[in-house]
Amino acid sequence: MTAKVRVTLKEGVLDPQGAAIRRALGKMGHQAVQQVRQGKYFELEFEEGAAEEEVRRRSEEIAHKVLSNPIIERFEIEEIQ
Amino acid sequence: MTAKVRVTLKEGVLDPQGAAIRRALGKMGHQAVQQVRQGKYFELEFEEGAAEEEVRRRSEEIAHKVLSNPIIERFEIEEIQ
Repeated sequence: MTAKVRVTLKEGVLDPQGAAIRRALGKMGHQAVQQVRQGKYFELEFEEGAAEEEVRRRSEEIAHKVLSNPIIERFEIEEIQ
Repeated sequence: MTAKVRVTLKEGVLDPQGAAIRRALGKMGHQAVQQVRQGKYFELEFEEGAAEEEVRRRSEEIAHKVLSNPIIERFEIEEIQ
């Protein structure tokens, strides 16, 4: 069973990497892109037979404590399957 | 209109960051997590009024040429909305 976790910067937090990508895109003719925000993505593969509620509980704990910095980032469990 | 793009390592490509996270999780009591794969996530915000097909076409071009390294990574346009 695999949990897919997305970690993104909270609104209002500066994203210099995203801004650099946007500038580069502008120079490449993609002025239609007005903002780029960069985040992280994780796949957590659990042992076979793990119960979905247990996978969800652990994934939320791991996303909160290990994968994200709750001061500037938020996380989302995209799907468990 | 915003395109959400996920970039992940191709199967078989080593992921030392993911492996390091897995080891750390094991020491924290999360032995149930057997593998961790780390990827990237991007949100591309297009100018208002952009047509969905145009946003999709540009997003695929940008994901291929700028956001990913096609030799070791693959990308997926998660959604456009």
